[in-house]
Amino acid sequence: MRCDRVWIKARLATLAQGAPGLGVVEDGVIAARDGRILHAGPASDAPAFDAAETVDCDGRWITPGLIDPHTHLIFGGDRAHEFELRLAGASYEEIARAGGGIVSTMKATREATEDQLVAAALPRLDALIAEGLTTIEVKSGYGLSLEHELKSLRAARALARARPVSVKTTFLGAHALPPEFKDDADGYVDLVCREMIPAVAAPEFGGEGLADAVDGFCEGIGFSPAQIRRVFETARAHGLPVKLHAEQLSNLHGAALAAEFGALSADHLEYLDEAGISAMAKAGTTAVLLPGAYYFVRETRLPPIEALRAAGVPLALATDCNPGTSPLTSLLLTMNMAATLFRMTVDECLAGVTREAARALGVLADRGTLEAGKACDLAIWDVERPAELVYRMGFNPLHARVWSAVS
Amino acid sequence: MRCDRVWIKARLATLAQGAPGLGVVEDGVIAARDGRILHAGPASDAPAFDAAETVDCDGRWITPGLIDPHTHLIFGGDRAHEFELRLAGASYEEIARAGGGIVSTMKATREATEDQLVAAALPRLDALIAEGLTTIEVKSGYGLSLEHELKSLRAARALARARPVSVKTTFLGAHALPPEFKDDADGYVDLVCREMIPAVAAPEFGGEGLADAVDGFCEGIGFSPAQIRRVFETARAHGLPVKLHAEQLSNLHGAALAAEFGALSADHLEYLDEAGISAMAKAGTTAVLLPGAYYFVRETRLPPIEALRAAGVPLALATDCNPGTSPLTSLLLTMNMAATLFRMTVDECLAGVTREAARALGVLADRGTLEAGKACDLAIWDVERPAELVYRMGFNPLHARVWSAVS
Ligand SMILES: [Zn+2]
Ligand SMILES: [Zn+2]
Repeated sequence: MRCDRVWIKARLATLAQGAPGLGVVEDGVIAARDGRILHAGPASDAPAFDAAETVDCDGRWITPGLIDPHTHLIFGGDRAHEFELRLAGASYEEIARAGGGIVSTMKATREATEDQLVAAALPRLDALIAEGLTTIEVKSGYGLSLEHELKSLRAARALARARPVSVKTTFLGAHALPPEFKDDADGYVDLVCREMIPAVAAPEFGGEGLADAVDGFCEGIGFSPAQIRRVFETARAHGLPVKLHAEQLSNLHGAALAAEFGALSADHLEYLDEAGISAMAKAGTTAVLLPGAYYFVRETRLPPIEALRAAGVPLALATDCNPGTSPLTSLLLTMNMAATLFRMTVDECLAGVTREAARALGVLADRGTLEAGKACDLAIWDVERPAELVYRMGFNPLHARVWSAVS
Repeated sequence: MRCDRVWIKARLATLAQGAPGLGVVEDGVIAARDGRILHAGPASDAPAFDAAETVDCDGRWITPGLIDPHTHLIFGGDRAHEFELRLAGASYEEIARAGGGIVSTMKATREATEDQLVAAALPRLDALIAEGLTTIEVKSGYGLSLEHELKSLRAARALARARPVSVKTTFLGAHALPPEFKDDADGYVDLVCREMIPAVAAPEFGGEGLADAVDGFCEGIGFSPAQIRRVFETARAHGLPVKLHAEQLSNLHGAALAAEFGALSADHLEYLDEAGISAMAKAGTTAVLLPGAYYFVRETRLPPIEALRAAGVPLALATDCNPGTSPLTSLLLTMNMAATLFRMTVDECLAGVTREAARALGVLADRGTLEAGKACDLAIWDVERPAELVYRMGFNPLHARVWSAVS
């Protein structure tokens, strides 16, 4: 069978749906044609390939390319100084006076050009890519005005032209209240619904096609369920799937609201209750867990992993890369945190950054497992067993990364 | 003034003793001759240098090269499978039956040749070096017999020939009881004192000069204070300074015992009490804190940071890199954990992996700060402020590393 490239003598963790555990194939072969997987499975079952290039993997492990399904990669400035002040004992007022908090990120994001936002994000993206990432979700949400939200989403789209990586963009206008709408959250939600969502929607809905989904922050310090409902209704009217930052600091029943709208995912979930879990399970909404934020803000309330597991809610993992609560650019470390802090198993961790992450982005038909027909996105690892990817801290055993069959 | 190399247009965090905070110099210059710092300070104060090579740092930050003062870098095998089994709910018996625990590392270490131990350790060392490490402490302690402890220390010494890095070796025969001495801990301590310490001591004490210090594990599951005292007395008789794994899981007053012997450091210290703190302060014993182990074993008892601070005990940080309780090979992540989990300040974290780490190894006169006369070991960083080195997770902004004036 003619193909472009074939990887031989590999051990595969296919993560194939329905396969037990990691879908391990001990003596595996992967063949690619036109950027897609033509065959992935045991060498003994494989047809004879007539390949333009053959890669001997020498017994190395291949997993699907890693997927980060929740990041705020596009932002101006950083918050290292705020972190430093807080450790030195500064109060919130002192930090605010020193220019800290999300408003500082909003200001820096507004001040930056699109190119500057891309340039600032690329080192973060490169750190993720260096660990085998092939698909990333990137949210807006620090512009908080039509102009700067559009600029942020354009910058997110530009990342996919700057690097060999797939980018899914998410419009997160309902992230925080900009100062010009102080005491008028409903007025800001009007702006989100009347101007921003129509502008970022697909061309067939009259927009620029800048967003692949719509997200919100449902929280006392964010937006109310009633406000998020308006955002979701507008998203639906504009053909955009939704997801939600839900139950991070308190239980506003955001996950159930998201499930009502058939959300791709509900994210964070430390304060999720049983009703939210069953709503997610019924709707097929994926739980995106963010152990980096849990760790960084020293949260002590664990997301209800056992109950999510019992209900069959898919569990994905993400960095939540953002300057305020999770300045994290490592999916390997994210997996270690999920195992160490959340007691997720090795198989759950690896599925969480591959198959389940693809599910959380609505791209599982196309990515996230090593199966024929999917994009040939691979991570090839110098490890003896996949558990090493979760067990070690601050060590990157990536041997090679392949995106659309090209490394 | 003639010199070999000069670094200009740098911002320096000199960590100089007596300087406030990080010893910041905004427009700094460093000159090196014969591998040593000839001058480090403001450009305005610097003499004119006649340098063979000038490096323009373009405003980048320079810190002392990083120092990891507590690692178990030399070992055979790994414990990823044990980690996986535990997360999947296996009991300790099941793990022991599957070959887990420290005995599995001892077996793999004994089975490995010296060259194999070096080859296994080099990727770990390289990960640390990639983040600016220039000096590392490496312990034995998985051989647990004369032959295999000597082999482990020879492997540790070999690391310094394999890479441009300074290595301080520590003999940790009193780490765990090997199975052949089951129920005869005193018999094993006899062996440590009568055969091992004399063999690893300096030539003037009749040994091979394989160890720079002697360490022990003072704990219910390790060795008693009386046994450690014998080890320390023997070390003293053989001209070797001591240090101790103390108060990690319970309070056996190990830190006070270490202080009594003028120990370089007492390490871990989660269960340290006031008496131990004052003993350390009086003896000038450095506290080496190991947040990676705290995190990995999900310890909840914090070391008494505030009391150590108040008593003026120097605080160093280390990875404790080991396969059982801290498979960590990142000093950047170690700093983030110390800040996030222990609430150490940015200045304390950076001093902890430079100046105080040098103090913990007894090499402060020679390393750990940017001061004239010391080894020219530098880490040059692509950051806007040093706090970024502590704040970010899973990101390496090292621009260049310099060891003995050579990069
Ligand atoms: Zn988020
Ligand atoms: Zn140790």
